[in-house]
Amino acid sequence: MPKIALIQTRVAPDYAAAIGHMESRIREAAFAGAQVMLLPELFASPYFCQEELHAHFALSESARGRTVSGMVALAKELHVVIVVPFFERVAAGIYFNTAAVIDADGTVLGQYRKMHIPDDPGFYEKFYFSPGDLGYQVFQTCYGRIGVLICWDQWYPEAARLTALRGADILVYPTAIGWHPDEKSAHGETQYTAWQRVQLGHAVANGVFVAAINRTGFEKNPTKDTGIEFWGRSFLAGPQGELLAQAGERDDETIVQDVDFSQIETVRQHWPFFRDRRIDSYGEMTKRYIGTER
Amino acid sequence: MPKIALIQTRVAPDYAAAIGHMESRIREAAFAGAQVMLLPELFASPYFCQEELHAHFALSESARGRTVSGMVALAKELHVVIVVPFFERVAAGIYFNTAAVIDADGTVLGQYRKMHIPDDPGFYEKFYFSPGDLGYQVFQTCYGRIGVLICWDQWYPEAARLTALRGADILVYPTAIGWHPDEKSAHGETQYTAWQRVQLGHAVANGVFVAAINRTGFEKNPTKDTGIEFWGRSFLAGPQGELLAQAGERDDETIVQDVDFSQIETVRQHWPFFRDRRIDSYGEMTKRYIGTER
Repeated sequence: MPKIALIQTRVAPDYAAAIGHMESRIREAAFAGAQVMLLPELFASPYFCQEELHAHFALSESARGRTVSGMVALAKELHVVIVVPFFERVAAGIYFNTAAVIDADGTVLGQYRKMHIPDDPGFYEKFYFSPGDLGYQVFQTCYGRIGVLICWDQWYPEAARLTALRGADILVYPTAIGWHPDEKSAHGETQYTAWQRVQLGHAVANGVFVAAINRTGFEKNPTKDTGIEFWGRSFLAGPQGELLAQAGERDDETIVQDVDFSQIETVRQHWPFFRDRRIDSYGEMTKRYIGTER
Repeated sequence: MPKIALIQTRVAPDYAAAIGHMESRIREAAFAGAQVMLLPELFASPYFCQEELHAHFALSESARGRTVSGMVALAKELHVVIVVPFFERVAAGIYFNTAAVIDADGTVLGQYRKMHIPDDPGFYEKFYFSPGDLGYQVFQTCYGRIGVLICWDQWYPEAARLTALRGADILVYPTAIGWHPDEKSAHGETQYTAWQRVQLGHAVANGVFVAAINRTGFEKNPTKDTGIEFWGRSFLAGPQGELLAQAGERDDETIVQDVDFSQIETVRQHWPFFRDRRIDSYGEMTKRYIGTER
Protein backbone atom coordinates (compact mmCIF):
# COMPACT_ATOMS: atom_id res chain seq x y z
CA MET A 1 0.00 0.00 0.00
CA PRO A 2 2.12 2.89 -1.22
CA LYS A 3 1.84 6.39 0.15
CA ILE A 4 1.59 8.94 -2.62
CA ALA A 5 2.04 12.69 -2.66
CA LEU A 6 0.25 15.16 -4.91
CA ILE A 7 2.37 18.29 -4.75
CA GLN A 8 0.28 21.34 -5.64
CA THR A 9 2.39 24.43 -6.01
CA ARG A 10 2.71 28.02 -7.08
CA VAL A 11 5.48 28.36 -9.62
CA ALA A 12 8.30 30.86 -9.19
CA PRO A 13 9.31 32.85 -12.28
CA ASP A 14 12.93 31.76 -12.00
CA TYR A 15 13.99 28.21 -12.93
CA ALA A 16 16.39 27.74 -10.03
CA ALA A 17 13.79 28.98 -7.57
CA ALA A 18 11.04 26.79 -9.05
CA ILE A 19 13.23 23.68 -8.98
CA GLY A 20 14.59 24.47 -5.54
CA HIS A 21 11.09 24.90 -4.18
CA MET A 22 9.92 21.63 -5.70
CA GLU A 23 12.92 19.78 -4.31
CA SER A 24 12.12 21.06 -0.82
CA ARG A 25 8.51 20.01 -1.23
CA ILE A 26 9.58 16.53 -2.32
CA ARG A 27 11.91 16.23 0.66
CA GLU A 28 9.09 17.26 3.00
CA ALA A 29 6.74 14.74 1.42
CA ALA A 30 9.36 12.01 1.69
CA PHE A 31 9.83 12.91 5.35
CA ALA A 32 6.07 12.46 5.75
CA GLY A 33 6.45 8.97 4.35
CA ALA A 34 5.42 9.50 0.74
CA GLN A 35 6.94 7.09 -1.76
CA VAL A 36 5.47 8.36 -5.03
CA MET A 37 5.83 12.05 -5.91
CA LEU A 38 3.36 13.57 -8.36
CA LEU A 39 4.12 17.05 -9.74
CA PRO A 40 2.09 19.57 -11.75
CA GLU A 41 2.49 19.96 -15.52
CA LEU A 42 5.51 22.04 -16.63
CA PHE A 43 6.19 22.84 -12.97
CA ALA A 44 9.66 24.28 -13.67
CA SER A 45 8.41 27.48 -15.27
CA PRO A 46 5.47 29.82 -15.35
CA TYR A 47 2.84 28.61 -17.79
CA PHE A 48 4.51 30.13 -20.86
CA CYS A 49 1.76 29.00 -23.25
CA GLN A 50 -0.27 32.08 -22.32
CA GLU A 51 1.47 33.70 -25.29
CA GLU A 52 3.04 32.51 -28.53
CA LEU A 53 6.65 33.58 -28.21
CA HIS A 54 9.58 31.90 -29.90
CA ALA A 55 11.88 32.82 -27.04
CA HIS A 56 10.08 30.33 -24.82
CA PHE A 57 11.48 27.40 -26.79
CA ALA A 58 14.67 28.11 -24.85
CA LEU A 59 12.94 26.55 -21.85
CA SER A 60 12.95 23.15 -23.54
CA GLU A 61 15.47 20.45 -22.68
CA SER A 62 16.30 16.90 -23.63
CA ALA A 63 14.88 13.80 -22.00
CA ARG A 64 18.02 13.63 -19.89
CA GLY A 65 18.29 17.38 -19.35
CA ARG A 66 18.74 19.35 -16.17
CA THR A 67 15.23 18.79 -14.78
CA VAL A 68 15.10 15.04 -15.21
CA SER A 69 18.74 14.63 -14.13
CA GLY A 70 18.15 16.56 -10.95
CA MET A 71 15.08 14.52 -10.16
CA VAL A 72 16.92 11.25 -10.86
CA ALA A 73 19.45 12.16 -8.19
CA LEU A 74 16.67 13.06 -5.77
CA ALA A 75 14.70 9.87 -6.49
CA LYS A 76 17.79 7.78 -5.80
CA GLU A 77 18.68 9.67 -2.65
CA LEU A 78 15.19 9.52 -1.16
CA HIS A 79 14.23 6.17 -2.71
CA VAL A 80 11.02 7.56 -4.14
CA VAL A 81 9.25 7.37 -7.47
CA ILE A 82 8.88 10.77 -9.17
CA VAL A 83 6.69 11.69 -12.14
CA VAL A 84 8.51 14.66 -13.67
CA PRO A 85 6.75 16.86 -16.21
CA PHE A 86 9.06 18.87 -18.47
CA PHE A 87 9.21 20.71 -21.78
CA GLU A 88 10.96 18.21 -23.99
CA ARG A 89 13.17 19.02 -26.97
CA VAL A 90 13.89 16.11 -29.29
CA ALA A 91 15.37 18.00 -32.23
CA ALA A 92 15.16 21.44 -33.81
CA GLY A 93 11.46 21.98 -34.42
CA ILE A 94 10.27 18.94 -32.46
CA TYR A 95 9.08 19.60 -28.94
CA PHE A 96 6.71 17.77 -26.63
CA ASN A 97 4.81 18.31 -23.40
CA THR A 98 6.26 15.35 -21.57
CA ALA A 99 6.44 13.60 -18.22
CA ALA A 100 9.24 11.21 -17.30
CA VAL A 101 8.71 8.47 -14.76
CA ILE A 102 11.64 7.80 -12.47
CA ASP A 103 11.69 4.66 -10.36
CA ALA A 104 12.84 4.69 -6.75
CA ASP A 105 16.33 3.49 -7.69
CA GLY A 106 16.78 6.41 -10.07
CA THR A 107 16.05 4.50 -13.27
CA VAL A 108 14.18 6.53 -15.85
CA LEU A 109 11.48 4.06 -16.87
CA GLY A 110 10.41 6.13 -19.85
CA GLN A 111 8.34 9.10 -20.73
CA TYR A 112 4.80 9.92 -21.75
CA ARG A 113 4.24 12.66 -24.32
CA LYS A 114 0.94 14.49 -24.04
CA MET A 115 -1.33 13.10 -26.72
CA HIS A 116 -4.11 15.72 -26.75
CA ILE A 117 -2.86 19.27 -27.22
CA PRO A 118 -5.17 22.21 -26.49
CA ASP A 119 -5.42 25.53 -28.22
CA ASP A 120 -7.60 27.99 -26.42
CA PRO A 121 -7.22 31.67 -25.58
CA GLY A 122 -4.34 31.72 -23.10
CA PHE A 123 -3.52 28.05 -23.62
CA TYR A 124 -1.69 28.16 -26.96
CA GLU A 125 -0.08 24.76 -26.66
CA LYS A 126 -0.38 23.81 -30.32
CA PHE A 127 2.23 26.49 -31.01
CA TYR A 128 4.80 24.78 -28.83
CA PHE A 129 4.11 21.05 -28.76
CA SER A 130 3.73 18.32 -31.30
CA PRO A 131 1.02 15.85 -30.34
CA GLY A 132 2.54 12.93 -28.46
CA ASP A 133 3.93 10.11 -30.56
CA LEU A 134 4.45 7.42 -27.93
CA GLY A 135 0.83 6.45 -27.33
CA TYR A 136 -0.67 5.54 -23.96
CA GLN A 137 1.69 4.09 -21.44
CA VAL A 138 1.90 2.49 -18.05
CA PHE A 139 5.12 2.41 -16.08
CA GLN A 140 5.84 -0.45 -13.70
CA THR A 141 7.44 1.22 -10.70
CA CYS A 142 8.37 -0.49 -7.51
CA TYR A 143 5.31 1.15 -5.90
CA GLY A 144 2.69 0.30 -8.52
CA ARG A 145 1.78 0.63 -12.17
CA ILE A 146 1.49 4.29 -13.01
CA GLY A 147 -0.37 5.49 -16.08
CA VAL A 148 0.58 9.03 -17.01
CA LEU A 149 -1.61 11.43 -18.95
CA ILE A 150 -1.35 15.22 -19.02
CA CYS A 151 -3.95 17.96 -18.50
CA TRP A 152 -6.02 18.27 -21.73
CA ASP A 153 -5.96 14.44 -21.90
CA GLN A 154 -8.26 14.66 -18.87
CA TRP A 155 -11.26 15.36 -21.07
CA TYR A 156 -10.81 12.21 -23.19
CA PRO A 157 -12.37 8.95 -22.00
CA GLU A 158 -10.38 7.18 -24.72
CA ALA A 159 -7.06 8.17 -23.12
CA ALA A 160 -8.20 6.97 -19.70
CA ARG A 161 -9.52 3.69 -21.10
CA LEU A 162 -6.49 2.86 -23.20
CA THR A 163 -4.19 3.57 -20.26
CA ALA A 164 -6.33 1.53 -17.86
CA LEU A 165 -6.42 -1.36 -20.34
CA ARG A 166 -2.62 -1.39 -20.19
CA GLY A 167 -2.92 -2.26 -16.52
CA ALA A 168 -2.62 1.07 -14.73
CA ASP A 169 -3.39 1.12 -11.02
CA ILE A 170 -3.60 4.90 -11.07
CA LEU A 171 -4.03 7.52 -13.76
CA VAL A 172 -1.81 10.49 -12.97
CA TYR A 173 -2.65 13.82 -14.58
CA PRO A 174 -0.07 16.60 -14.15
CA THR A 175 -2.10 19.71 -14.82
CA ALA A 176 -2.03 23.45 -15.42
CA ILE A 177 -5.63 24.61 -15.50
CA GLY A 178 -7.29 27.73 -14.23
CA TRP A 179 -9.69 30.54 -14.78
CA HIS A 180 -9.61 33.58 -16.97
CA PRO A 181 -10.34 36.18 -14.28
CA ASP A 182 -13.12 37.76 -16.35
CA GLU A 183 -14.92 34.41 -16.66
CA LYS A 184 -14.56 33.23 -13.09
CA SER A 185 -17.68 34.65 -11.53
CA ALA A 186 -20.02 33.52 -14.31
CA HIS A 187 -18.43 30.23 -15.33
CA GLY A 188 -15.78 29.35 -12.75
CA GLU A 189 -17.64 26.77 -10.74
CA THR A 190 -19.13 25.12 -13.82
CA GLN A 191 -15.68 24.82 -15.36
CA TYR A 192 -14.06 23.45 -12.23
CA THR A 193 -16.90 21.03 -11.57
CA ALA A 194 -16.90 19.70 -15.12
CA TRP A 195 -13.15 19.18 -14.94
CA GLN A 196 -13.45 17.14 -11.78
CA ARG A 197 -16.55 15.24 -12.88
CA VAL A 198 -15.14 13.96 -16.11
CA GLN A 199 -12.13 12.57 -14.25
CA LEU A 200 -14.25 10.96 -11.52
CA GLY A 201 -16.09 9.38 -14.44
CA HIS A 202 -12.80 7.89 -15.67
CA ALA A 203 -12.18 6.41 -12.21
CA VAL A 204 -15.64 4.82 -12.19
CA ALA A 205 -15.62 3.55 -15.77
CA ASN A 206 -12.19 1.99 -15.40
CA GLY A 207 -12.02 1.02 -11.75
CA VAL A 208 -8.74 2.88 -11.25
CA PHE A 209 -7.37 5.50 -8.93
CA VAL A 210 -7.08 8.98 -10.43
CA ALA A 211 -4.77 11.79 -9.32
CA ALA A 212 -4.90 15.30 -10.77
CA ILE A 213 -2.07 17.59 -9.70
CA ASN A 214 -2.60 21.23 -10.55
CA ARG A 215 -0.58 24.38 -10.00
CA THR A 216 -2.07 27.33 -8.17
CA GLY A 217 -1.62 31.09 -8.01
CA PHE A 218 -2.19 33.90 -10.48
CA GLU A 219 0.24 34.17 -13.38
CA LYS A 220 0.05 37.39 -15.31
CA ASN A 221 0.18 37.29 -19.07
CA PRO A 222 3.36 39.28 -19.77
CA THR A 223 1.89 41.11 -22.75
CA LYS A 224 -1.71 41.66 -21.68
CA ASP A 225 -3.66 43.12 -18.86
CA THR A 226 -4.86 39.69 -17.81
CA GLY A 227 -3.57 36.24 -16.88
CA ILE A 228 -4.64 32.87 -15.53
CA GLU A 229 -5.76 32.15 -12.02
CA PHE A 230 -4.76 28.50 -11.63
CA TRP A 231 -7.46 26.85 -9.58
CA GLY A 232 -5.48 24.39 -7.48
CA ARG A 233 -7.90 21.83 -5.99
CA SER A 234 -5.70 18.93 -6.91
CA PHE A 235 -7.50 15.74 -5.99
CA LEU A 236 -7.23 12.02 -5.56
CA ALA A 237 -10.10 9.64 -6.37
CA GLY A 238 -10.57 5.95 -5.70
CA PRO A 239 -11.64 3.23 -8.13
CA GLN A 240 -15.34 3.81 -7.48
CA GLY A 241 -14.97 7.49 -8.31
CA GLU A 242 -14.99 8.43 -4.65
CA LEU A 243 -13.13 11.61 -3.78
CA LEU A 244 -10.40 10.63 -1.31
CA ALA A 245 -8.70 14.00 -0.89
CA GLN A 246 -8.80 17.46 -2.37
CA ALA A 247 -6.49 20.44 -1.95
CA GLY A 248 -7.60 24.05 -1.59
CA GLU A 249 -7.75 26.60 -4.33
CA ARG A 250 -5.01 29.08 -3.51
CA ASP A 251 -2.08 27.66 -1.58
CA ASP A 252 0.83 25.32 -1.85
CA GLU A 253 -0.45 22.05 -0.49
CA THR A 254 0.67 18.45 -0.53
CA ILE A 255 -1.84 15.64 -0.34
CA VAL A 256 -0.14 12.61 1.20
CA GLN A 257 -2.32 9.55 1.13
CA ASP A 258 -2.09 5.76 1.32
CA VAL A 259 -3.56 4.09 -1.72
CA ASP A 260 -4.47 0.42 -1.64
CA PHE A 261 -4.22 -0.77 -5.21
CA SER A 262 -5.52 -4.21 -4.21
CA GLN A 263 -8.99 -2.60 -4.00
CA ILE A 264 -9.04 -2.47 -7.78
CA GLU A 265 -9.55 -6.19 -8.25
CA THR A 266 -12.45 -6.26 -5.77
CA VAL A 267 -14.10 -3.24 -7.36
CA ARG A 268 -13.83 -4.71 -10.84
CA GLN A 269 -15.29 -8.02 -9.69
CA HIS A 270 -18.29 -6.19 -8.26
CA TRP A 271 -18.56 -3.72 -11.15
CA PRO A 272 -17.49 -5.93 -14.05
CA PHE A 273 -17.46 -3.26 -16.74
CA PHE A 274 -14.37 -4.63 -18.46
CA ARG A 275 -16.03 -8.03 -18.87
CA ASP A 276 -18.90 -6.62 -20.91
CA ARG A 277 -17.18 -4.13 -23.20
CA ARG A 278 -18.60 -4.64 -26.68
CA ILE A 279 -15.23 -4.59 -28.37
CA ASP A 280 -16.89 -5.80 -31.58
CA SER A 281 -18.76 -2.48 -31.73
CA TYR A 282 -16.08 0.12 -30.99
CA GLY A 283 -14.35 0.25 -34.38
CA GLU A 284 -15.76 3.68 -35.19
CA MET A 285 -13.97 5.26 -32.24
CA THR A 286 -11.27 6.06 -34.80
CA LYS A 287 -13.62 8.34 -36.74
CA ARG A 288 -13.86 12.09 -36.28
CA TYR A 289 -17.63 12.09 -36.78
CA ILE A 290 -20.14 9.44 -37.77
CA GLY A 291 -23.38 11.33 -38.28
CA THR A 292 -24.52 13.27 -41.29
CA GLU A 293 -23.43 16.88 -41.71
CA ARG A 294 -25.58 19.40 -39.95
CA MET B 1 -36.48 24.45 -27.35
CA PRO B 2 -38.40 21.26 -26.61
CA LYS B 3 -39.87 20.45 -23.24
CA ILE B 4 -39.00 16.94 -22.15
CA ALA B 5 -40.43 14.68 -19.46
CA LEU B 6 -38.52 12.07 -17.46
CA ILE B 7 -41.22 9.84 -16.03
CA GLN B 8 -39.95 8.04 -12.95
CA THR B 9 -42.37 5.42 -11.75
CA ARG B 10 -43.12 2.50 -9.53
CA VAL B 11 -44.19 -0.46 -11.60
CA ALA B 12 -47.41 -2.34 -10.91
CA PRO B 13 -47.24 -6.15 -11.03
CA ASP B 14 -50.02 -6.37 -13.59
CA TYR B 15 -49.38 -5.40 -17.23
CA ALA B 16 -52.67 -3.57 -17.75
CA ALA B 17 -52.17 -1.62 -14.54
CA ALA B 18 -48.56 -0.74 -15.41
CA ILE B 19 -49.47 0.41 -18.91
CA GLY B 20 -52.56 2.26 -17.73
CA HIS B 21 -50.54 4.06 -15.10
CA MET B 22 -47.85 5.06 -17.62
CA GLU B 23 -50.49 6.30 -20.05
CA SER B 24 -51.95 8.55 -17.36
CA ARG B 25 -48.50 9.84 -16.50
CA ILE B 26 -47.82 10.64 -20.16
CA ARG B 27 -51.14 12.46 -20.46
CA GLU B 28 -50.34 14.51 -17.37
CA ALA B 29 -46.89 15.38 -18.73
CA ALA B 30 -48.38 16.36 -22.09
CA PHE B 31 -50.89 18.54 -20.25
CA ALA B 32 -47.90 20.19 -18.56
CA GLY B 33 -46.50 20.94 -22.00
CA ALA B 34 -43.96 18.14 -22.39
CA GLN B 35 -43.24 17.09 -25.97
CA VAL B 36 -40.75 14.26 -25.44
CA MET B 37 -41.66 11.41 -23.08
CA LEU B 38 -38.86 9.37 -21.57
CA LEU B 39 -39.78 6.15 -19.75
CA PRO B 40 -37.83 3.75 -17.51
CA GLU B 41 -36.36 0.50 -18.80
CA LEU B 42 -38.85 -2.39 -19.13
CA PHE B 43 -41.49 -0.21 -17.49
CA ALA B 44 -44.37 -2.54 -18.38
CA SER B 45 -43.48 -5.22 -15.85
CA PRO B 46 -41.70 -5.73 -12.58
CA TYR B 47 -37.97 -6.21 -13.10
CA PHE B 48 -38.24 -9.93 -13.89
CA CYS B 49 -34.47 -10.37 -14.28
CA GLN B 50 -34.17 -10.78 -10.51
CA GLU B 51 -34.54 -14.49 -11.24
CA GLU B 52 -33.84 -16.81 -14.15
CA LEU B 53 -37.27 -18.21 -15.02
CA HIS B 54 -38.29 -19.43 -18.44
CA ALA B 55 -41.88 -18.38 -17.83
CA HIS B 56 -40.82 -14.72 -18.03
CA PHE B 57 -40.12 -15.02 -21.75
CA ALA B 58 -43.91 -14.84 -22.09
CA LEU B 59 -43.57 -11.13 -21.32
CA SER B 60 -41.76 -10.55 -24.61
CA GLU B 61 -43.46 -9.10 -27.65
CA SER B 62 -42.64 -8.11 -31.20
CA ALA B 63 -41.41 -4.68 -32.29
CA ARG B 64 -45.00 -3.87 -33.22
CA GLY B 65 -46.56 -5.62 -30.24
CA ARG B 66 -49.09 -4.34 -27.75
CA THR B 67 -46.78 -1.97 -25.89
CA VAL B 68 -45.37 -0.15 -28.90
CA SER B 69 -48.75 -0.14 -30.67
CA GLY B 70 -50.48 1.42 -27.69
CA MET B 71 -47.78 4.08 -27.43
CA VAL B 72 -47.97 4.82 -31.15
CA ALA B 73 -51.64 5.67 -30.74
CA LEU B 74 -50.87 7.84 -27.73
CA ALA B 75 -48.00 9.65 -29.48
CA LYS B 76 -50.24 10.44 -32.42
CA GLU B 77 -53.11 11.59 -30.21
CA LEU B 78 -50.97 13.85 -28.02
CA HIS B 79 -48.45 14.78 -30.72
CA VAL B 80 -45.51 13.80 -28.54
CA VAL B 81 -42.32 11.82 -29.02
CA ILE B 82 -42.13 8.72 -26.83
CA VAL B 83 -39.12 6.52 -26.11
CA VAL B 84 -40.68 3.16 -25.30
CA PRO B 85 -38.61 0.45 -23.63
CA PHE B 86 -39.91 -3.08 -24.08
CA PHE B 87 -38.89 -6.73 -23.94
CA GLU B 88 -38.47 -7.58 -27.60
CA ARG B 89 -39.00 -10.98 -29.18
CA VAL B 90 -37.60 -11.37 -32.69
CA ALA B 91 -37.85 -15.14 -33.07
CA ALA B 92 -37.89 -18.22 -30.89
CA GLY B 93 -34.73 -17.96 -28.83
CA ILE B 94 -33.86 -14.38 -29.86
CA TYR B 95 -34.83 -11.66 -27.42
CA PHE B 96 -33.54 -8.15 -26.79
CA ASN B 97 -33.80 -5.42 -24.19
CA THR B 98 -35.07 -2.72 -26.55
CA ALA B 99 -36.41 0.79 -26.76
CA ALA B 100 -38.47 2.03 -29.71
CA VAL B 101 -38.53 5.70 -30.62
CA ILE B 102 -41.89 7.02 -31.77
CA ASP B 103 -42.09 10.39 -33.46
CA ALA B 104 -44.85 12.86 -32.67
CA ASP B 105 -46.87 11.78 -35.72
CA GLY B 106 -46.87 8.17 -34.55
CA THR B 107 -44.11 6.97 -36.87
CA VAL B 108 -41.85 4.38 -35.29
CA LEU B 109 -38.43 5.72 -36.23
CA GLY B 110 -36.66 2.57 -35.19
CA GLN B 111 -35.37 0.80 -32.15
CA TYR B 112 -32.22 0.56 -30.12
CA ARG B 113 -31.24 -2.79 -28.66
CA LYS B 114 -29.21 -2.66 -25.45
CA MET B 115 -25.61 -3.31 -26.39
CA HIS B 116 -24.10 -4.00 -22.95
CA ILE B 117 -25.90 -6.70 -20.99
CA PRO B 118 -25.23 -7.11 -17.28
CA ASP B 119 -25.11 -10.23 -15.20
CA ASP B 120 -24.97 -9.59 -11.53
CA PRO B 121 -26.74 -11.11 -8.55
CA GLY B 122 -30.36 -10.03 -9.02
CA PHE B 123 -29.71 -8.61 -12.49
CA TYR B 124 -29.56 -11.79 -14.57
CA GLU B 125 -30.02 -10.13 -17.93
CA LYS B 126 -27.65 -12.35 -19.87
CA PHE B 127 -30.17 -15.16 -19.36
CA TYR B 128 -32.90 -13.24 -21.19
CA PHE B 129 -31.31 -10.91 -23.70
CA SER B 130 -28.92 -11.26 -26.59
CA PRO B 131 -26.50 -8.34 -26.78
CA GLY B 132 -27.85 -5.67 -29.12
CA ASP B 133 -27.12 -6.15 -32.81
CA LEU B 134 -28.09 -2.74 -34.19
CA GLY B 135 -25.18 -0.69 -32.89
CA TYR B 136 -25.41 2.86 -31.57
CA GLN B 137 -28.17 4.97 -32.94
CA VAL B 138 -29.59 8.44 -33.05
CA PHE B 139 -33.19 9.11 -34.00
CA GLN B 140 -34.15 12.34 -35.71
CA THR B 141 -37.45 13.27 -34.11
CA CYS B 142 -39.34 16.45 -34.73
CA TYR B 143 -38.12 17.68 -31.32
CA GLY B 144 -34.43 16.85 -31.62
CA ARG B 145 -31.93 14.09 -32.25
CA ILE B 146 -32.33 11.47 -29.57
CA GLY B 147 -29.60 8.94 -28.84
CA VAL B 148 -30.91 5.97 -26.90
CA LEU B 149 -28.85 3.75 -24.65
CA ILE B 150 -30.10 1.51 -21.86
CA CYS B 151 -29.04 1.11 -18.21
CA TRP B 152 -25.82 -0.97 -18.13
CA ASP B 153 -24.68 1.02 -21.21
CA GLN B 154 -24.40 3.92 -18.73
CA TRP B 155 -21.04 2.68 -17.50
CA TYR B 156 -19.43 2.68 -20.96
CA PRO B 157 -17.82 5.87 -22.27
CA GLU B 158 -17.57 4.16 -25.66
CA ALA B 159 -21.35 3.90 -25.98
CA ALA B 160 -21.82 7.55 -25.07
CA ARG B 161 -19.09 8.67 -27.45
CA LEU B 162 -20.26 6.63 -30.43
CA THR B 163 -23.81 7.86 -29.96
CA ALA B 164 -22.71 11.48 -29.56
CA LEU B 165 -20.56 11.20 -32.68
CA ARG B 166 -23.70 10.25 -34.57
CA GLY B 167 -25.07 13.67 -33.75
CA ALA B 168 -27.18 13.11 -30.63
CA ASP B 169 -28.47 16.19 -28.82
CA ILE B 170 -29.34 14.10 -25.80
CA LEU B 171 -28.37 10.66 -24.52
CA VAL B 172 -31.43 9.00 -23.06
CA TYR B 173 -30.89 6.12 -20.64
CA PRO B 174 -34.00 4.17 -19.62
CA THR B 175 -32.89 2.49 -16.41
CA ALA B 176 -33.73 -0.09 -13.76
CA ILE B 177 -31.10 0.23 -11.06
CA GLY B 178 -31.29 -0.05 -7.32
CA TRP B 179 -29.86 -1.36 -4.13
CA HIS B 180 -29.70 -4.78 -2.62
CA PRO B 181 -31.20 -3.93 0.78
CA ASP B 182 -28.36 -5.63 2.64
CA GLU B 183 -25.77 -3.48 0.85
CA LYS B 184 -27.54 -0.15 1.06
CA SER B 185 -26.21 1.16 4.34
CA ALA B 186 -22.57 0.29 3.59
CA HIS B 187 -22.40 0.90 -0.16
CA GLY B 188 -25.60 2.64 -1.21
CA GLU B 189 -24.37 6.18 -1.54
CA THR B 190 -21.12 5.14 -3.21
CA GLN B 191 -23.07 3.12 -5.75
CA TYR B 192 -25.57 5.86 -6.48
CA THR B 193 -22.90 8.55 -6.69
CA ALA B 194 -20.72 6.52 -9.05
CA TRP B 195 -23.73 5.87 -11.28
CA GLN B 196 -24.49 9.55 -11.55
CA ARG B 197 -20.86 10.64 -11.87
CA VAL B 198 -20.00 8.43 -14.77
CA GLN B 199 -22.99 9.81 -16.68
CA LEU B 200 -22.18 13.43 -15.85
CA GLY B 201 -18.77 12.56 -17.24
CA HIS B 202 -20.40 11.51 -20.52
CA ALA B 203 -22.21 14.84 -20.69
CA VAL B 204 -18.94 16.74 -20.18
CA ALA B 205 -16.78 14.65 -22.50
CA ASN B 206 -19.31 14.82 -25.32
CA GLY B 207 -21.03 18.17 -24.81
CA VAL B 208 -24.49 16.58 -24.82
CA PHE B 209 -27.53 16.52 -22.61
CA VAL B 210 -28.00 13.32 -20.62
CA ALA B 211 -31.25 11.95 -19.19
CA ALA B 212 -31.41 8.91 -16.92
CA ILE B 213 -34.91 7.64 -16.18
CA ASN B 214 -35.10 5.10 -13.40
CA ARG B 215 -37.92 3.20 -11.77
CA THR B 216 -38.50 3.40 -8.03
CA GLY B 217 -40.02 1.29 -5.28
CA PHE B 218 -39.10 -2.04 -3.72
CA GLU B 219 -39.70 -5.14 -5.82
CA LYS B 220 -39.48 -8.39 -3.93
CA ASN B 221 -37.65 -11.30 -5.46
CA PRO B 222 -40.46 -13.87 -5.80
CA THR B 223 -38.28 -16.79 -4.73
CA LYS B 224 -36.07 -15.24 -2.10
CA ASP B 225 -36.32 -13.29 1.09
CA THR B 226 -34.90 -10.23 -0.59
CA GLY B 227 -35.42 -7.96 -3.59
CA ILE B 228 -34.27 -4.70 -5.15
CA GLU B 229 -34.93 -1.24 -3.83
CA PHE B 230 -34.88 0.82 -7.03
CA TRP B 231 -33.24 4.11 -6.21
CA GLY B 232 -35.21 6.54 -8.34
CA ARG B 233 -33.26 9.83 -8.54
CA SER B 234 -33.77 10.12 -12.26
CA PHE B 235 -31.85 13.12 -13.50
CA LEU B 236 -31.23 15.47 -16.36
CA ALA B 237 -27.79 16.98 -17.08
CA GLY B 238 -26.70 19.71 -19.47
CA PRO B 239 -23.80 19.66 -21.94
CA GLN B 240 -21.29 20.89 -19.37
CA GLY B 241 -22.23 18.08 -17.00
CA GLU B 242 -24.33 20.42 -14.90
CA LEU B 243 -27.20 18.78 -13.03
CA LEU B 244 -30.40 20.46 -14.26
CA ALA B 245 -32.95 18.42 -12.35
CA GLN B 246 -33.11 15.36 -10.14
CA ALA B 247 -36.06 13.37 -8.84
CA GLY B 248 -36.38 11.95 -5.36
CA GLU B 249 -35.61 8.43 -4.30
CA ARG B 250 -38.95 6.88 -3.47
CA ASP B 251 -41.90 8.33 -5.33
CA ASP B 252 -43.48 8.62 -8.72
CA GLU B 253 -42.19 11.86 -10.10
CA THR B 254 -42.03 13.53 -13.49
CA ILE B 255 -39.27 15.97 -14.33
CA VAL B 256 -40.58 18.37 -16.98
CA GLN B 257 -37.89 20.64 -18.30
CA ASP B 258 -37.08 22.85 -21.28
CA VAL B 259 -33.87 21.84 -22.99
CA ASP B 260 -32.12 24.22 -25.34
CA PHE B 261 -30.17 22.03 -27.73
CA SER B 262 -28.63 25.09 -29.38
CA GLN B 263 -26.39 25.35 -26.28
CA ILE B 264 -24.47 22.36 -27.56
CA GLU B 265 -22.74 24.22 -30.37
CA THR B 266 -21.63 27.01 -28.03
CA VAL B 267 -20.34 24.56 -25.44
CA ARG B 268 -18.38 22.61 -28.02
CA GLN B 269 -16.83 25.78 -29.42
CA HIS B 270 -15.65 26.72 -25.94
CA TRP B 271 -14.66 23.17 -24.98
CA PRO B 272 -13.41 21.84 -28.31
CA PHE B 273 -12.87 18.24 -27.24
CA PHE B 274 -14.12 16.79 -30.52
CA ARG B 275 -11.56 18.83 -32.47
CA ASP B 276 -8.61 17.29 -30.67
CA ARG B 277 -9.58 13.62 -30.44
CA ARG B 278 -6.51 11.59 -31.40
CA ILE B 279 -8.40 9.28 -33.72
CA ASP B 280 -5.09 7.93 -35.00
CA SER B 281 -4.43 6.51 -31.53
CA TYR B 282 -7.74 4.85 -30.61
CA GLY B 283 -7.47 1.65 -32.63
CA GLU B 284 -6.90 -0.49 -29.57
CA MET B 285 -10.30 0.41 -28.14
CA THR B 286 -11.42 -2.80 -29.82
CA LYS B 287 -9.20 -4.92 -27.57
CA ARG B 288 -10.30 -6.59 -24.37
CA TYR B 289 -6.99 -5.88 -22.66
CA ILE B 290 -3.69 -4.46 -23.82
CA GLY B 291 -1.35 -4.97 -20.89
CA THR B 292 0.55 -8.06 -19.93
CA GLU B 293 -1.15 -10.73 -17.84
CA ARG B 294 -0.97 -10.24 -14.13
